[in-house]
Amino acid sequence: MQIAIALYENFTALDAIGPYETLGNIPGAETVLVAEQAGPVRNDRGDLSVVATKSFAEVTRPDIVVVPGGPDATNQTENKPLLDWLRAVDPTTTWTTSVCTGALALAAAGLLENRRATTHWLAMDTLEGLGARPTGERVVFDGKYVTAAGVSSGIDMGLTLVGKLQGDMVAQVIQLMTEYDPQPPYDAGSPDKAPAEVVAYCRAELTV
Amino acid sequence: MQIAIALYENFTALDAIGPYETLGNIPGAETVLVAEQAGPVRNDRGDLSVVATKSFAEVTRPDIVVVPGGPDATNQTENKPLLDWLRAVDPTTTWTTSVCTGALALAAAGLLENRRATTHWLAMDTLEGLGARPTGERVVFDGKYVTAAGVSSGIDMGLTLVGKLQGDMVAQVIQLMTEYDPQPPYDAGSPDKAPAEVVAYCRAELTV
Repeated sequence: MQIAIALYENFTALDAIGPYETLGNIPGAETVLVAEQAGPVRNDRGDLSVVATKSFAEVTRPDIVVVPGGPDATNQTENKPLLDWLRAVDPTTTWTTSVCTGALALAAAGLLENRRATTHWLAMDTLEGLGARPTGERVVFDGKYVTAAGVSSGIDMGLTLVGKLQGDMVAQVIQLMTEYDPQPPYDAGSPDKAPAEVVAYCRAELTV
Repeated sequence: MQIAIALYENFTALDAIGPYETLGNIPGAETVLVAEQAGPVRNDRGDLSVVATKSFAEVTRPDIVVVPGGPDATNQTENKPLLDWLRAVDPTTTWTTSVCTGALALAAAGLLENRRATTHWLAMDTLEGLGARPTGERVVFDGKYVTAAGVSSGIDMGLTLVGKLQGDMVAQVIQLMTEYDPQPPYDAGSPDKAPAEVVAYCRAELTV
């Protein structure tokens, strides 16, 4: 089983590493970090690079594709090398997945047309504008397309997919080994739960 | 404010990226990935590299240090370049922190002597053997030393520290922007909660 995590300039690191550390821990699976060209790929803050081990041209038949998100929708929606690769490999994947605004790339590639999907809460309208039907769930399955909400939700998506692919025992072993027993110090992880002033600040001052 | 996240061969990626994406998002903070030498540093599975942007020699006065963990305690406890650097920079940090078995490096450097601390649940005895007093909490503060449990707990530690440093509002904004509203598909993230056969399998077959 080959799991291909796509990297591109301005990706968000945790979007990629959450699925890497869960889904990518399936025993015997090969995980490749793939980008337009092999080599370091800079993230959204510009101070961290993850090395792509393969180029898009070298990864032609991945079983599972994971597309992380990043700020500024054009990084996804106008990313021709990424979109061309997604269109080329999607016909033979068993699962095509995204985290956060990675869904905008799937949608821009034409893969989420009229499908239920999700993305970062601040990008729901953009996702809808690209032809998908956004939902408020954290991990959304529609056929072989799996989309997760913002950034950290890729951990939940990864564990959910491990369970589907390998059964509950393997998923629980990975959860226990990553000690994923979340205890956030605040309950502000979604716009429904965060204090109104926090939501208002994010809407007014920040973008994804 | 300079936040230095230490990298070394065989580090666990999520241990580093959890704090990077939370603590490292403090507005105006500089985050450096630091290792014995600048350049790509391979993780525990060997298929992912994060680029260290600075060498230990170049980072002499970080305000906050974060040490990720990784498998095989000797990667931490016998890592002379890392331990030397920790001993050199610790006297002027405001916070010295670890995730997972990163605590074994802090302890081996002599920084956790008789201090309350935590680590990956499978490494508690090793941590105690190095002079610390392990607790079962997910994030442990003892003076300026902050240790977190296994792998994913670095996210909780990062948000907790953001709250202490910058107040609740900034921490909640970061939580909301990373959409950290965890919904694990299983409740198996700690040895107290996971099914007995999952815990037994990890104890018998896996190590950290």
